[in-house]
Amino acid sequence: MGNLRREALELYLVTDRALSQGRPLAEIVCAAAEGGATMVQLREKACDTREFVELGRAIHAILQPLGIPLIVNDRADIALVIGAEGLHIGQHDMTYDDARRLLGPETIIGLSVENEEQARECLSFAGLDYIGASPVFATPTKTDTAEALGLEGLERLRRIVGPELPMVAIGGINRSNIQDIIRSGADGVAVVSAICSAPEPEAAARALLHEIKQAKR
Amino acid sequence: MGNLRREALELYLVTDRALSQGRPLAEIVCAAAEGGATMVQLREKACDTREFVELGRAIHAILQPLGIPLIVNDRADIALVIGAEGLHIGQHDMTYDDARRLLGPETIIGLSVENEEQARECLSFAGLDYIGASPVFATPTKTDTAEALGLEGLERLRRIVGPELPMVAIGGINRSNIQDIIRSGADGVAVVSAICSAPEPEAAARALLHEIKQAKR
Repeated sequence: MGNLRREALELYLVTDRALSQGRPLAEIVCAAAEGGATMVQLREKACDTREFVELGRAIHAILQPLGIPLIVNDRADIALVIGAEGLHIGQHDMTYDDARRLLGPETIIGLSVENEEQARECLSFAGLDYIGASPVFATPTKTDTAEALGLEGLERLRRIVGPELPMVAIGGINRSNIQDIIRSGADGVAVVSAICSAPEPEAAARALLHEIKQAKR
Repeated sequence: MGNLRREALELYLVTDRALSQGRPLAEIVCAAAEGGATMVQLREKACDTREFVELGRAIHAILQPLGIPLIVNDRADIALVIGAEGLHIGQHDMTYDDARRLLGPETIIGLSVENEEQARECLSFAGLDYIGASPVFATPTKTDTAEALGLEGLERLRRIVGPELPMVAIGGINRSNIQDIIRSGADGVAVVSAICSAPEPEAAARALLHEIKQAKR
C-alpha cells in the first residue's frame, strides 16, 4: 500500500464527459485541480481506443506537473500507454490479481466494492491501494450500480477491511452529506456530477474540500 | 517481421459471437481449427473486460496446444493478460507505435489498412507483422467500414507495401472469390461469417482452405 498517499483520496474527481454540460474535459479537470481535487479518474465507456489515449495524454499533461495522480478506469492498456499513475477496476473488469501482475507493484490500483462479501475478498489482495465503496447513496450518474450502502454500510465495510486500507466513498455525494461520510470511515469522497455538472467546477471543488477538512478537524 | 509465419495468414478466422447462430465460440473455434484455420482473432466489442479475459483464456487454451496463434482485437491489456500471441489494431485503436512499445518486439501486431494513404504509412512502422486490407468486398459483418477496395485496390495496396509485408484480405470473402483474392496479392483471407455462420464450420474452413491452396499451386 505504498503507492498512494492516503490524502490523495480526499477529493477524487471521476470524469464524465456526458455530464460536463458541453465543456471540454480538460477545462473541468483544470478547474477541479485549481479548486483542490486530490486525484482524478478518467472514465470513458463509449469512446474508441485512439481517442481514449489522446484524451488520457492531454489530461495527464495537466495533472502530472501538479503532482495529482491520474487513474484510468478499467483499461490497463490505456494506463500503461499514457503512463498514468494508476488503474481503477470494478467487479466486471479484469481481476485484481491480473491487474497487479500486468501493471507491476508500483502502480496505484483501486477496486470498487459494492457489498460485504467483496470487501472480505479484498483482504486477500496483497498491495491493493484503495477501495471505492460504491454506491454510498443512490446516484443518477450510473445506472448499473448495486444497492446503496448508506452510512451504516460504509461503517460495516470499514470494519471488514480494517483501519489500514484506504477507502473512498462514491455515489450521490454532495456538500450536505460529506461530513457524515467521512465520519463513517471514508478517507475521502469520489464525485462525478458534483464537480462535472457544477456551474463553477473550481468553486464546487473548493467547497467540497472544505467540508472534508471540516469533518477531519 | 519475424513474429509471424506468413502461412499463418492463410485462413484467418475473426470471431463474432453475434454471427455464430447461438453456438458457443469455443465450438466454432475448435471446428475451424479442425478444418484448417491457421490463425484466430478474438474480436469482442460489447462484452465487459472480465468476460473478455475469461473468453480469451478459454480460446487460448484450445489454440495454444495446436500451435495456432491467437490475436486479440484492439485490447492490448487483454492480449497481455491472457498471453495471446498477438494484437490486431484498426485505425481507431491505439497507434502502431504505442502498441509496439507496450507489447514488445516479439508479439505479433497486425494493422487494418483501408486505403492507399494508410498503406504508405505502414512503410514507416518498423516490425509491423501484417496488414489486413479492409474491406476487400462489401460486407454485412461490419457496418462502419470504408469503401470496398476490390481486387484492383488489393493489387494497389500490395504494390505500395512491397512484396515482403504479409497481407491478409478481409470483407465479403467466400469460396467463390478466394482464388481471385490470392492472385491479387493477398497471402491469405480473414473471414467472419464464412465460418462463424456456416452450418458446419469445420467443413466450411476446409473448403475455404482448399480454395487458398488451389490458388497457390
